[in-house]
Amino acid sequence: MSTSNGKTMTNGMISAVVALAVILTSALPSIAQDTDPLPSWNDSQAKKTIVQFVTRVTNKGGPDYVAPEQRIATFDNDGTLWCERPIVQVIYLRQKLDRMSEQTPSQCIELPFLATFDDTIDSLKTKGVLAFLKLFATTHAGMSQREFTAEVEEFFSKTKHPNFDVSIGRVVYQPMVELLKYLRANEFKTYICSGGGIDFMRVVSPKLYGIPPQQVIGSSVRKELQEVEGVWVLTRTGDLNSVNDKNEKAVNIGLHIGQRPLFAMGNVRSGGDIGMLTYSQGRSGRSLQLLLNHDDEEREFAYSEKNGESLQAAKANGWSVVSMKNDWKSIFAFGLPSRVDEKSSLPGE
Amino acid sequence: MSTSNGKTMTNGMISAVVALAVILTSALPSIAQDTDPLPSWNDSQAKKTIVQFVTRVTNKGGPDYVAPEQRIATFDNDGTLWCERPIVQVIYLRQKLDRMSEQTPSQCIELPFLATFDDTIDSLKTKGVLAFLKLFATTHAGMSQREFTAEVEEFFSKTKHPNFDVSIGRVVYQPMVELLKYLRANEFKTYICSGGGIDFMRVVSPKLYGIPPQQVIGSSVRKELQEVEGVWVLTRTGDLNSVNDKNEKAVNIGLHIGQRPLFAMGNVRSGGDIGMLTYSQGRSGRSLQLLLNHDDEEREFAYSEKNGESLQAAKANGWSVVSMKNDWKSIFAFGLPSRVDEKSSLPGE
Repeated sequence: MSTSNGKTMTNGMISAVVALAVILTSALPSIAQDTDPLPSWNDSQAKKTIVQFVTRVTNKGGPDYVAPEQRIATFDNDGTLWCERPIVQVIYLRQKLDRMSEQTPSQCIELPFLATFDDTIDSLKTKGVLAFLKLFATTHAGMSQREFTAEVEEFFSKTKHPNFDVSIGRVVYQPMVELLKYLRANEFKTYICSGGGIDFMRVVSPKLYGIPPQQVIGSSVRKELQEVEGVWVLTRTGDLNSVNDKNEKAVNIGLHIGQRPLFAMGNVRSGGDIGMLTYSQGRSGRSLQLLLNHDDEEREFAYSEKNGESLQAAKANGWSVVSMKNDWKSIFAFGLPSRVDEKSSLPGE
Repeated sequence: MSTSNGKTMTNGMISAVVALAVILTSALPSIAQDTDPLPSWNDSQAKKTIVQFVTRVTNKGGPDYVAPEQRIATFDNDGTLWCERPIVQVIYLRQKLDRMSEQTPSQCIELPFLATFDDTIDSLKTKGVLAFLKLFATTHAGMSQREFTAEVEEFFSKTKHPNFDVSIGRVVYQPMVELLKYLRANEFKTYICSGGGIDFMRVVSPKLYGIPPQQVIGSSVRKELQEVEGVWVLTRTGDLNSVNDKNEKAVNIGLHIGQRPLFAMGNVRSGGDIGMLTYSQGRSGRSLQLLLNHDDEEREFAYSEKNGESLQAAKANGWSVVSMKNDWKSIFAFGLPSRVDEKSSLPGE
């Protein structure tokens, strides 16, 4: 056998090469195992439950093994992957309405809503996600996909979070970013399944979460293929296509993914994730459902649900409740938030 | 430096190891290139166009390089990935209607359609895809996802193709199976985007095409999450959710994928793929659109479009037309089809 420098390798040298190759390749998995994949999680029950579950379903030959093509994980976004006080998309909409009100008055009058922005926001607080999405749809009707994306990108590049002294895209939960990576390292496909607008989330999901657009499911408007200045583009109509909340989350998981999630996680606030977690749990064989509880007034917020139905469903169905206060070592990558005193009155507070 | 057998490696030995590693790793790509990834394609222009395109967009540092996350390829199914004479889902529906007519007459009377199956099929021929999908939706209303999947699996396991002497799932085009694999080997994500039912195709797409359920886009019915015998399941309603044909294909690609396809392929027959190919072509930078022409009476079928709009669109827009007769070395994995004399009267003939 000859090498590129012209010298002949002896059998002993070949053995050495093979031995070295074995050492190098066998060293890689043990290095990966030795590094904690979830460093922002405390070593409490929640982390143990997650790691045990992932270990079981990826253990080839074990009784709970699940093939990689069935390792689907779905996550709510607002309040599960990032902070929902206030809801980021509502901040975006406030800016949009402010810009619109500075333009011709006729445009404002055409909105089938209330006279002032604050009235509108108050109305949204009581009327909920459907009213918000209708206002969102109406105010963006006629925009092409490219125009919409550009507006959202500009929003994220220029806006500070109203409560914390950081830019708006930095309020993602670090433990959740680690969990997404951990699942993907174990050949899970990670999806967002949120009441938020599908196109709004898709602008930032690759950068914030490593989740590509095709793995984002959300509320959507009807679109049309139209020719605009010689190019055929998808334009937004003012009509809602789907409100991805409660049981509709399961319906849209069926439409977009076509199989039940093996792993599903939402949060306590509006009962909006019960349908998704219930649907996941209906899977044949083992599956895992988690609910994030916002109980950390110091490091984020402490808030609960009016009727408590999410925690009741968790108790009744054996879902794991994750406490931000007890189960998370840190919450944001930027550390403890510097509170901004000024109170905004946006939904989610 | 020590190896596992305790001997010390000299610098010369280390150089040899490095050289060997370089030789071994650099050998892999050239082996892959030497094997023709599209052996069922003739060395005609269509194949050259495809290979040149894929080489260009995967050439890192080249002017047309496209990152893997944007390498989206979408394919029509009926007449593009498998034979559409007759349409496979219509054969399935015929069997379903036959079974229903053997059951209680009341069930038949409830169908808002014609008195006999042949009348219904004749009606579908003139009324097109919407009438077919409405009949499909109505006759499957109330079924759970699991029940529906079981029926479709049974159909594929038991049914022979009415024209060719093979089982119904074997009429896939071998050149297209190779093309899908070739694209995936080059880090494309391959999607089906078809007028066929999304759930019908998802049952067989992993096995036939290596395409997982979440990469199948099709026509769909509305579903609901319901509790059936203690388990929450998605059940089919009788209402259509989306008719994935013509411009709606672009709309649904926007909904499911969220970006324009880099590569799109349909076939000549009903103009159903013009919207998808037009949308793909609107992508910034290079993209490729292909139309399959059924011009091989001997090995498959020769048929054209009433108004010729697909070929006209191909000419006007510079899309590549693939001739089954001239560009494909073989069509089916089972070789030349043995024709069955009996003529069925199903749509698609």
